[in-house]
Amino acid sequence: MSTVDTEVTKRLAEWVCESDFSSVPDAVRDEAARTLLNWMGCAVGGSGHESVDITLRALGPFMGEPQASVLGRTERADVLHASLLNGLSSHVFDFDDTHLQTIIHPAGPVASALVPLAEHRPVSGRDFLHALILGVEVECRIGNAVYPDHYDTGWHITGTAGVFGAAAAAGRLLGLDVQRMCWALAGAATQAAGLREMFGTMLKPFLIGRAAQNGLAAALLAAEGLTGSERALEAPRGFARVLSTKQDFAAICDGLGQSYEILLNTYKPYPCGVVIHPSLDGCIRLKQEHGLTGEDIEAVELRVHPLVLELTGNKTPQTGLQGKFSVYHAVGAALVLGRVGVAEFTDEVVQDPRVTAVRDRVSAVVDDHIREAGAVVTIRLKDGRTVEEVVEEASGSLECPLSDEDMDAKVHALADPMLGEASTREMIRACRGVAALEDAGALARAATPSA
Amino acid sequence: MSTVDTEVTKRLAEWVCESDFSSVPDAVRDEAARTLLNWMGCAVGGSGHESVDITLRALGPFMGEPQASVLGRTERADVLHASLLNGLSSHVFDFDDTHLQTIIHPAGPVASALVPLAEHRPVSGRDFLHALILGVEVECRIGNAVYPDHYDTGWHITGTAGVFGAAAAAGRLLGLDVQRMCWALAGAATQAAGLREMFGTMLKPFLIGRAAQNGLAAALLAAEGLTGSERALEAPRGFARVLSTKQDFAAICDGLGQSYEILLNTYKPYPCGVVIHPSLDGCIRLKQEHGLTGEDIEAVELRVHPLVLELTGNKTPQTGLQGKFSVYHAVGAALVLGRVGVAEFTDEVVQDPRVTAVRDRVSAVVDDHIREAGAVVTIRLKDGRTVEEVVEEASGSLECPLSDEDMDAKVHALADPMLGEASTREMIRACRGVAALEDAGALARAATPSA
Repeated sequence: MSTVDTEVTKRLAEWVCESDFSSVPDAVRDEAARTLLNWMGCAVGGSGHESVDITLRALGPFMGEPQASVLGRTERADVLHASLLNGLSSHVFDFDDTHLQTIIHPAGPVASALVPLAEHRPVSGRDFLHALILGVEVECRIGNAVYPDHYDTGWHITGTAGVFGAAAAAGRLLGLDVQRMCWALAGAATQAAGLREMFGTMLKPFLIGRAAQNGLAAALLAAEGLTGSERALEAPRGFARVLSTKQDFAAICDGLGQSYEILLNTYKPYPCGVVIHPSLDGCIRLKQEHGLTGEDIEAVELRVHPLVLELTGNKTPQTGLQGKFSVYHAVGAALVLGRVGVAEFTDEVVQDPRVTAVRDRVSAVVDDHIREAGAVVTIRLKDGRTVEEVVEEASGSLECPLSDEDMDAKVHALADPMLGEASTREMIRACRGVAALEDAGALARAATPSA
Repeated sequence: MSTVDTEVTKRLAEWVCESDFSSVPDAVRDEAARTLLNWMGCAVGGSGHESVDITLRALGPFMGEPQASVLGRTERADVLHASLLNGLSSHVFDFDDTHLQTIIHPAGPVASALVPLAEHRPVSGRDFLHALILGVEVECRIGNAVYPDHYDTGWHITGTAGVFGAAAAAGRLLGLDVQRMCWALAGAATQAAGLREMFGTMLKPFLIGRAAQNGLAAALLAAEGLTGSERALEAPRGFARVLSTKQDFAAICDGLGQSYEILLNTYKPYPCGVVIHPSLDGCIRLKQEHGLTGEDIEAVELRVHPLVLELTGNKTPQTGLQGKFSVYHAVGAALVLGRVGVAEFTDEVVQDPRVTAVRDRVSAVVDDHIREAGAVVTIRLKDGRTVEEVVEEASGSLECPLSDEDMDAKVHALADPMLGEASTREMIRACRGVAALEDAGALARAATPSA
């Protein structure tokens, strides 16, 4: 067994404790601010969802002092429950960020824990941003060590890896020493949980909140001296061996501080299965270029990557949630309504006769020459013309990232209904300028209606 | 795939929802009352442990209204945190009950959730006892379905199976219908966690509390309508397939309401590794019969089952916790002090020269003819005599269960220091008479110093 195999947890903990913000490259800081902004838009936008209401009703009677904001809402909660609620709302639209290499949604567990903690125990924007970067790094590296075997087995990796990210980030803000950081990671390991079987139900986004809350609790407990293993990741009965058949410990330890996983983070332009995105790009471009309406369309043919039909082949979705995993509905909505945002995945829109009329004229053909980020959209019009768009790189991919303007538009569409446009603009400014904030508690305040 | 494989969760949920207390045999009710009493003694006895102080310090600032008792202490907490703290203290001495077939400690997750819930939302003693029986049944049957593969992989089974027991028991008290009971079990499944790597640290007992708390939360969330899978146990990405290589679904569904796992529950006479127990029986009998003191002893030879040296072969333990897994220390303490209770596993006693002098004269030899519940203790005395005791069935085993008097003595030894003798007597009476209690909240009140 190499040193790497025997001291994985300790080496990771040392790095989290000792990392110096001045050595973090500007590009990493900028991407972290984008990650924060995208997450905050999602958390505010999702905060009106029924699952948040349910969780507040169910657990509200047991919550503590109103120490922290529930983003997007007027209610407040104790720090632990605020982290749960923020994590839940940030994932409920399936619109949050994606580390494509592991399918982890990195911000959910980490930012959801940090924002309420920073509101309760003031820290600078620099320290906040640094903790966010470290937490995402821990989470994605642990994901890299076990993906894909771990995910294929059925683990909801954003929960199982995310709880470590939350523990590390919160532990850094709490100033843990290396031993206690190891215990915090151990507390994360022994709470690592989450099954893909819950996809399509409210327990899916709930789990992201739970990972944030449990990781934060692990750090708080370690800070007071609750002991744990110091080999939680690598031990024979530790996380990587119990929850995965693959253990690539070098992916955790190699190049710490030299490469940053947050640079690989991506942000969705559309709140639906990511494999649908290239087809949507093509449809929206064609609609704009040719001024198409639903009535103009005789037939739509998509040539797509095989995963599109495997993951989103539902021809007759009935609910908004099913619509998120139907390339037919998404394309129909894009061509009729000209946009594919949260509002296009309600039950009403999925059943709207104008949309279903176009949806039913869409056919999709697998083309093995098309990459996952590409698609060819061909539309036959009733007037006899045929128009076509070839998409090489879907918007939102690493190669074709969301521009700052696109990101702002996304966040406004999510947050304006909850906060109003002016407050959303302030929230965007706070996120982009996080490194300069004297008090990172301003983030939570900017993301609530009372602000 | 048989019906059993496709409707495991639903069948279990139906049984939990529809079970009628009048059909529960008296022997089952009596054993459940003993389970409750043993658990309560352990929870009160462990409540002064440093790990409870730490958890109160770390999480206290985030706790809610003082709705429920923290057993053994004057502090109160919200119902969820009370379940966490009770579960932690009930397991911290490793003195709680054991379902030997799965090594689950059944009461911890289930009773720790039920007692605070019943204090907050009044229920009769009958309904309380019924929920306890159902929760233990769910937990142990799920354990049976995956043991031993699941445990051998490194899962801390009392956490992973226990969270289901807590959800089912709490769900029954909350009056969930079958669909919501399925969602509660789904909430348990997606929070099922716990690694054996944490054995020997404070995160071990913490996990038992967490299982109680998370199972209770799953039931509360399901009651308000948080949706989940209805096939959490049996689905391809459900609990049994993701967390185990063995799935014996018949062990979950067959004979529900006909056999009861709680009848297989056992209670330790000594707070240390169960494989040491037969040797301790032998030593205590010899000391009493012959009036031995430590100074009389020239050498002690044990003939034991192979597991004794595998699990408890530490010859020179330094801490109380290590002493619990050292047959040498335990036998030394038994022969010098004449008893092996919680007080005999402090750091001081483990390092006491009178005890180590005898400990160092103990040798243990594996004898393949000796069963796990047996041992042969041979003592050579300084006066030249040799005395020997053959133990066939350790006290506390299914074949040689703790008598009611032994149980009372165990509970008094645990709880008297926290509550005083008279209050402990009242607590014992409340547990034994639980089925007749008008208000099961009396249980929690009987287990706190203010009572």
